[in-house]
Amino acid sequence: MTQRIAVIPGDGIGNEVMPEGLRALEAVAKRFDIDLAFEHFDFACCDYYAKHGKMMPDDWFEQLKDFDAIFYGAVGWPDTVPDHISLWGSLLQFRRQFDQYINLRPCKLLPGIKSPLADRKPGDIDFYVVRENTEGEYSSVGGKMFEGTKREVVIQETVMTRHGTDRVLKFAFDLAQSRPRKKLTSATKSNGIAITMPWWDERVAAMSGNYPEVSVDKFHIDILTANFVMHPDWFDVVVASNLFGDILSDLGPACTGTIGVAPSANINPEGTFPSLFEPVHGSAPDIAGKGIANPIGQIWSGAMMLEHLGHKEAADAIVAAFEAVLTEADPAVLTPDIRGQGTTQTLGQAIAERV
Amino acid sequence: MTQRIAVIPGDGIGNEVMPEGLRALEAVAKRFDIDLAFEHFDFACCDYYAKHGKMMPDDWFEQLKDFDAIFYGAVGWPDTVPDHISLWGSLLQFRRQFDQYINLRPCKLLPGIKSPLADRKPGDIDFYVVRENTEGEYSSVGGKMFEGTKREVVIQETVMTRHGTDRVLKFAFDLAQSRPRKKLTSATKSNGIAITMPWWDERVAAMSGNYPEVSVDKFHIDILTANFVMHPDWFDVVVASNLFGDILSDLGPACTGTIGVAPSANINPEGTFPSLFEPVHGSAPDIAGKGIANPIGQIWSGAMMLEHLGHKEAADAIVAAFEAVLTEADPAVLTPDIRGQGTTQTLGQAIAERV
Ligand SMILES: CC(C)[C@H](C(=O)O)[C@@H](O)C(=O)O
Ligand SMILES: CC(C)[C@H](C(=O)O)[C@@H](O)C(=O)O
Repeated sequence: MTQRIAVIPGDGIGNEVMPEGLRALEAVAKRFDIDLAFEHFDFACCDYYAKHGKMMPDDWFEQLKDFDAIFYGAVGWPDTVPDHISLWGSLLQFRRQFDQYINLRPCKLLPGIKSPLADRKPGDIDFYVVRENTEGEYSSVGGKMFEGTKREVVIQETVMTRHGTDRVLKFAFDLAQSRPRKKLTSATKSNGIAITMPWWDERVAAMSGNYPEVSVDKFHIDILTANFVMHPDWFDVVVASNLFGDILSDLGPACTGTIGVAPSANINPEGTFPSLFEPVHGSAPDIAGKGIANPIGQIWSGAMMLEHLGHKEAADAIVAAFEAVLTEADPAVLTPDIRGQGTTQTLGQAIAERV
Repeated sequence: MTQRIAVIPGDGIGNEVMPEGLRALEAVAKRFDIDLAFEHFDFACCDYYAKHGKMMPDDWFEQLKDFDAIFYGAVGWPDTVPDHISLWGSLLQFRRQFDQYINLRPCKLLPGIKSPLADRKPGDIDFYVVRENTEGEYSSVGGKMFEGTKREVVIQETVMTRHGTDRVLKFAFDLAQSRPRKKLTSATKSNGIAITMPWWDERVAAMSGNYPEVSVDKFHIDILTANFVMHPDWFDVVVASNLFGDILSDLGPACTGTIGVAPSANINPEGTFPSLFEPVHGSAPDIAGKGIANPIGQIWSGAMMLEHLGHKEAADAIVAAFEAVLTEADPAVLTPDIRGQGTTQTLGQAIAERV
């Protein structure tokens, strides 16, 4: 059975790391005899915006909805299109319209990647951030009053639903249940954000009743970010609202030194719509065009995509391949961000060959 | 001229560190001939709540409004009073009613305090977080619909005003202007929180026009937290909304290893109402009653209070005193959190003597 993948490189280094992501996928597909068909799309990027005055064609939903997955590079080019326009016109539409209500990001120390934290080694840090990906603080409800005057007031509403909250909690509890430590941490701020967050705590407490084996704790987001730095070994599965999850899933990889290489899965667990896989890093205007972007984020995202599509073994083979290349640490192969003199291509090729 | 200080120990370790905070203040007042009068209050704590069913007497505002400053310990005892009730009934009331619209927190590597970050030494990290302290995400506007049913929707509004935003920006720019590096970083999330945060960016841009000497940059809050860990040396003055500032001002001290000892100033710059000074740490139910809480947060807060009251030299003397005691690092004096076997008292006494 052919699985169809929509390929969207996006902006900046998205165009440079995508070929390497595909190279790894093609290698592993060959080895494990997986039938993947890639179709390329040139929208959901700022170049498209420059030509058409919008980020995507009107029928984007129709064009993409029957794919088995979307493989995305990076989006955003603030010099020409403000971020809130490019993002709300592409990635954030995918997440909402394809109901990719789970954002899943691993935080893991890798061999050969330097962590900014003192005295941590591979194995010490290995957890997931599960982020609500469709509602909450990322709402488009609100507006301005007395605009442009001294009395100006600007309001934006956080909107949480039981439907939207319970399903992400369920996913997170299931994940925690499936892992050896069976531990779930909830990110809250019920002492300050006194309407939505105490309610979030109630939903966590209610859901935990269904998972007697999972041990649950919670931290306010302020001290939780502090604990990511001080005690990253405490965490197994961390569940958070859209905004808190956004923060924690950048901070977590930063603590492991992997922010340039971490992957992100935007999942519609029911499979009603395609899920989307992308590196955590953005389009990186500062290094775009130089051919030195680290392709591991794209490649690792490809591994998460394979796992989602039912090819766990192939996914593991990709992860094993880049871990091996990182362990070897040949400076001629590695990109400059991880202390090499190689290029996006040399690193991508080495990983594909290893597969 | 006598300056009158309202002393509110609050809950848990607040009661243990407060005497040491006062001891340091009394020592320095003596040395610099400063006339401070302390008056103690037993409200704004959960014990008071247990007796009266509320956190403070109805006339708290009248009782406190004419003081020159409020010296607070810590508040909260979640086993008996939910945090959102204790906090909204005390600290958050002070901040709002006394219009303490600036929350100022130093993030500084100290001698003898181990940072969780690799390869950082005193001098490398030294910045301030300036947090909006009265509005924004900490609003009480919102509510629930379809409560208790599957269709439940919970809404909380973020409310930002030009008045509230411009004044904290002005304070932050003034602070940046006064420092050698003259650098201001704004915390935003205008790519995701697409109503309030693009507007926040506009206000920052507008204010920066008045400060041609101050160099300004901005980061989205997700990558900003990552940069606190990866590049803490980049920062000089960081300005942020109420929630983002809350997060950054815990994360910053966590990166310097000082979360147990960092101070927090809640300032009404005009002096219309008393400002409030408190340690960043909370009431710490886990160690309360053991006499081992580190008093430096309270003592450092006292130093910030002195500076606010016009006694810069005395404030510096307190900071110099605890830095000296930390540098000496006598294990019999230091508390267990900083690798000593001493108590709250031994450390407090050593600092007071040094003053
Ligand atoms: C206790 C809590 C309400 C408070 C806040 O969020 O403002 C605290 O975290 C702080 O930073 O002073
Ligand atoms: C680009 C931005 C809108 C996005 C988000 O905030 O969700 C990004 O930071 C992410 O985490 O995927």
